[in-house]
Amino acid sequence: MTVRVGVIGAGIMGMDHITNLATAISGAEVSFVADLDGARAADAAQQVEACSTTDPSALINSPEVDAVVIASHDSTHAELILACLQASKPVLCEKPLAPTVDECRQIVAADEEIVAATGRSLLSLGFMRRFDPGYQALLRHTGSGDAGTPLMVHCVSRNVASGPNTTTTTAITNSAIHELDIIPWLLGSPIVEVAWHAGRRSASAPEGFQDPALMLLRTADGVLTTLELFLNAQYGYSTRCEVVSERGTASLAEPALLSTNESLRQSTAYPEDWRPRFADAYRIQLQAWIRSLQDKTASPLATARDGLRAAQVAKALITASADSRNAFTGVDYS
Amino acid sequence: MTVRVGVIGAGIMGMDHITNLATAISGAEVSFVADLDGARAADAAQQVEACSTTDPSALINSPEVDAVVIASHDSTHAELILACLQASKPVLCEKPLAPTVDECRQIVAADEEIVAATGRSLLSLGFMRRFDPGYQALLRHTGSGDAGTPLMVHCVSRNVASGPNTTTTTAITNSAIHELDIIPWLLGSPIVEVAWHAGRRSASAPEGFQDPALMLLRTADGVLTTLELFLNAQYGYSTRCEVVSERGTASLAEPALLSTNESLRQSTAYPEDWRPRFADAYRIQLQAWIRSLQDKTASPLATARDGLRAAQVAKALITASADSRNAFTGVDYS
Amino acid sequence: MTVRVGVIGAGIMGMDHITNLATAISGAEVSFVADLDGARAADAAQQVEACSTTDPSALINSPEVDAVVIASHDSTHAELILACLQASKPVLCEKPLAPTVDECRQIVAADEEIVAATGRSLLSLGFMRRFDPGYQALLRHTGSGDAGTPLMVHCVSRNVASGPNTTTTTAITNSAIHELDIIPWLLGSPIVEVAWHAGRRSASAPEGFQDPALMLLRTADGVLTTLELFLNAQYGYSTRCEVVSERGTASLAEPALLSTNESLRQSTAYPEDWRPRFADAYRIQLQAWIRSLQDKTASPLATARDGLRAAQVAKALITASADSRNAFTGVDYS
Amino acid sequence: MTVRVGVIGAGIMGMDHITNLATAISGAEVSFVADLDGARAADAAQQVEACSTTDPSALINSPEVDAVVIASHDSTHAELILACLQASKPVLCEKPLAPTVDECRQIVAADEEIVAATGRSLLSLGFMRRFDPGYQALLRHTGSGDAGTPLMVHCVSRNVASGPNTTTTTAITNSAIHELDIIPWLLGSPIVEVAWHAGRRSASAPEGFQDPALMLLRTADGVLTTLELFLNAQYGYSTRCEVVSERGTASLAEPALLSTNESLRQSTAYPEDWRPRFADAYRIQLQAWIRSLQDKTASPLATARDGLRAAQVAKALITASADSRNAFTGVDYS
Repeated sequence: MTVRVGVIGAGIMGMDHITNLATAISGAEVSFVADLDGARAADAAQQVEACSTTDPSALINSPEVDAVVIASHDSTHAELILACLQASKPVLCEKPLAPTVDECRQIVAADEEIVAATGRSLLSLGFMRRFDPGYQALLRHTGSGDAGTPLMVHCVSRNVASGPNTTTTTAITNSAIHELDIIPWLLGSPIVEVAWHAGRRSASAPEGFQDPALMLLRTADGVLTTLELFLNAQYGYSTRCEVVSERGTASLAEPALLSTNESLRQSTAYPEDWRPRFADAYRIQLQAWIRSLQDKTASPLATARDGLRAAQVAKALITASADSRNAFTGVDYS
Repeated sequence: MTVRVGVIGAGIMGMDHITNLATAISGAEVSFVADLDGARAADAAQQVEACSTTDPSALINSPEVDAVVIASHDSTHAELILACLQASKPVLCEKPLAPTVDECRQIVAADEEIVAATGRSLLSLGFMRRFDPGYQALLRHTGSGDAGTPLMVHCVSRNVASGPNTTTTTAITNSAIHELDIIPWLLGSPIVEVAWHAGRRSASAPEGFQDPALMLLRTADGVLTTLELFLNAQYGYSTRCEVVSERGTASLAEPALLSTNESLRQSTAYPEDWRPRFADAYRIQLQAWIRSLQDKTASPLATARDGLRAAQVAKALITASADSRNAFTGVDYS
Repeated sequence: MTVRVGVIGAGIMGMDHITNLATAISGAEVSFVADLDGARAADAAQQVEACSTTDPSALINSPEVDAVVIASHDSTHAELILACLQASKPVLCEKPLAPTVDECRQIVAADEEIVAATGRSLLSLGFMRRFDPGYQALLRHTGSGDAGTPLMVHCVSRNVASGPNTTTTTAITNSAIHELDIIPWLLGSPIVEVAWHAGRRSASAPEGFQDPALMLLRTADGVLTTLELFLNAQYGYSTRCEVVSERGTASLAEPALLSTNESLRQSTAYPEDWRPRFADAYRIQLQAWIRSLQDKTASPLATARDGLRAAQVAKALITASADSRNAFTGVDYS
Repeated sequence: MTVRVGVIGAGIMGMDHITNLATAISGAEVSFVADLDGARAADAAQQVEACSTTDPSALINSPEVDAVVIASHDSTHAELILACLQASKPVLCEKPLAPTVDECRQIVAADEEIVAATGRSLLSLGFMRRFDPGYQALLRHTGSGDAGTPLMVHCVSRNVASGPNTTTTTAITNSAIHELDIIPWLLGSPIVEVAWHAGRRSASAPEGFQDPALMLLRTADGVLTTLELFLNAQYGYSTRCEVVSERGTASLAEPALLSTNESLRQSTAYPEDWRPRFADAYRIQLQAWIRSLQDKTASPLATARDGLRAAQVAKALITASADSRNAFTGVDYS
């Protein structure tokens, strides 16, 4: 049975999902596309022989739609997820679950009500790094215990340039959020306290955005994680993660297809944005989701509760970023 | 429209194709599996809810089969391909096209007769390296002219251990064949003469097999390619290719997911065989083939004629390997 | 004119200096060796045809000694340096200048009195990393401005195992001290505040020693430096330093002589301790010192004041390491 | 006792030796400099407070000269070496020993006459790669047998641009000569036959020079070595050597001080010529030579016979390069 997917949001991320579903995923097709911009929706829909609309609820409630992907603006996530749950449609929402803890709590409540009633969640959250082959290998290596107990983790997350309207706060809720999910997933331990420190501010950072910044995350197991977030790093898109354990360390390798020798340099290329770096992760995640829908098995993606926890840690970091003492701030999971 | 694929041969390579088609390729399903070993065929078929048989012609002629993948023993390729063409079924045959030049010629003739009659070939050849993202990047880099005209190419092809019954001859027709296809594809120039030289023989090489060996390939453009083939290299599976051009060089990067520090070493891992190294290439090639069938466009895979040319170069290398003067041998394309 | 050097301390570090001076440095010879252990002094002296003693003052005041190298226990540095200054002998003292700020201040005062009187300092301090070709290249790259203004620096300092009696405090005064000197040298800006955070404690760390630890150093220019110090990292000796600037980053390359392929791994080796890693730095530093004595030019090595500043930062870190609030501590340069 | 060295030839290579001897070598000083260009000789001599001359024999026979370094044009080597032997002065001659086999034979005869008479050779040959820490590590690794018996070796030798008047012949006698010495040294087995093949010719190669070229060297142990020599490679100076053995391989690592991230590239630098790459090798070789003179022990440098053997292999390669059959040519050691 082919899963007919409706995609809400036909921006960069939504188009990637549409193209993947239509050309690279087994058992799926795109049946409906929604976007506030009707022409953009129609263009996208035409490419994959789907219907289009500017009204997400028309898509969600269409009998031509078996499942929904939400790739619209962060601020719309909560309302759209709740509409999908209301319509009993499986939904994959892009990270973050929602920008605020309150919205996340509301989603978790609705999701858990359905689980209580039907025994199965309808909601999957797109923390795609969990499906990146590199992070998967790091998880296996860490879990194998070959290098002993993890003690520290060093993360670096650099982009060429920050998106429009990025602030210190949205850099946390939209970018750092990846590490806020991946670190507990990797270590099997929740983040219990955080700190935030400014680097020297880059002249390329837009007003209102302290870039780069250093974040410290302490998990319940005592491991200390450092995260350098630098969204205007200019030189390229790069994601690093090194787990320092008692007998050795393991790091994500920087993917590269070619090594070239030119002009007195030996070099490899960085991508300009996240898409080439995490193309496999997005594809594998989508395939896993479609597969779970076909097989009627539990989704292996992140859950609403994972999204809530990341939002709670983000909230603590936002508090820490405004703390002139620069001390650790506890995470409130209540 | 979903393409219903029949797969002939349920060994290692055939199972990879079956799993890909059933779980990772858009627009395809496996409808039939054939294998001389009936139990193996049935097992494979059951996993993907397909029919099974020990008779390839039943599969080829089944109305449930829209297209055929041939992954059976090299010696069966010619007969099975011709049966597919006879049945007017699109077919993807694993490399090599056939072990002998004569068989390849017969296939090319049958293929070209169909093209003459219908305007479209039914035959695609699985030289999957053409779809490897690394080789694709190397092709783009070489074609861009950024580094100037290519002058030499260095290839290294190492396996952990040679398969059963490998000889100096089958190492050429089954392993070196990849470079015999990829070098003309990369340079846009046919191989016109070849030489073959023995390395010091490894104690791990089975009787009748000179391993490692050095092959030299001269293309019509004057470029000299070296190929070290070492199938009992023990340390890991590795494929290298460096294009040396007038102003610089470009090499395939060795893929790795993690870099680890342990026991006084910094290291990355090699796979034990070709499957992890070329998993992407096989998947992308299959998807491109299925896509061309859906869209009724020309297949972007290698052709019968590509397979014939590789077989003709292989024949020259086999001749060279028996030449005590160690001189170059011309390739006979007549 | 050959400079006749007396070396105080014939332990691991002293023997390295003795061997270098006798066999690899232009214009120098070892004329005298002092060690509390008379047999050890005699052994060392015999290898280089020098005199030996258990009394450092006999060495310092000998007419056979033109200049002195101090490589004895940290606790002896202050007294021996003052004796050399008293005897008007040029002296190269191993880092740290002295374990306490008070001793360092006393040395600076004595040194500056001599400079005031004679126009030339007699004291050089062995912060050898300043002469490491890697750090030198990093200094040039940072100074060139090619990558723009530095914003953050990431340092990692890992050893196989901590020495006897290492504590959280001595790990700062003896190991982290290298970065406390090199960061201001690299950035041209003094460290003004510091913080110290525990990692999860390694089971290999001896009692009383929190290992690994993360230190944060803020320089007056606003740059934030992270330093992971992990003296029981087991896997090898490794020193990393990455300068993150506005348009790019530059890191020390990990030196390696060979790359090997074996047992499914591609790898390079780490040394077991600091000597192979910094052998060039020690040799080049010694040569520069000897040269300055021959040419009667100012020593290009670190000064007493550099040593005092590093001790002042170390003192702030020791205070920070005992601070349960984990906040930044200012450095007292008064 | 300080060895007073006279240096003949104050070009690039001679100046490097002069600077090393005067500033970085224990136990040596430069007492005399000779160069056909009197001004150049005087300039060089002044920098190190030495005498100068345009007449090499004045230098060789001066009582102020204990030992001689020959760094003048290849064509002068034989005559100058014989003059040193005549004067009973120890001499270090830059490679090649001499451009022709006949001259080399004459030198070997003179050298062996002295050995027969005095028990000790006066002649050392500057094949400095033997003292490169990378080649030393490769020798130890190969000799350790950890990776099993060597089977093939791959060498690459690339320069930015060929020197004035380079021809296919002088590229062999002046550049490839390094590998002709190092391969037998590494494998402990003489080269018995060779082949030479043209790559596609670079448009940057001057007339009369086939660049790049591939040379094949077969040692008596059966190992096959490939050598790509490309003197107009433009992108940088690079020397590679990979020993392929039964259970693994070992390669020279490309030395680098920094790794930088800039402009969508991660990169390391190549030097523009051989001096940074082999600076350590030259220094260590000179120090070893001076040490052997001080200690009156046998020189650990290459010998006259090593130089003769390399010239004999070069002669075979020159013959092979003119052979249109491209077959192997035996080396004549008679």
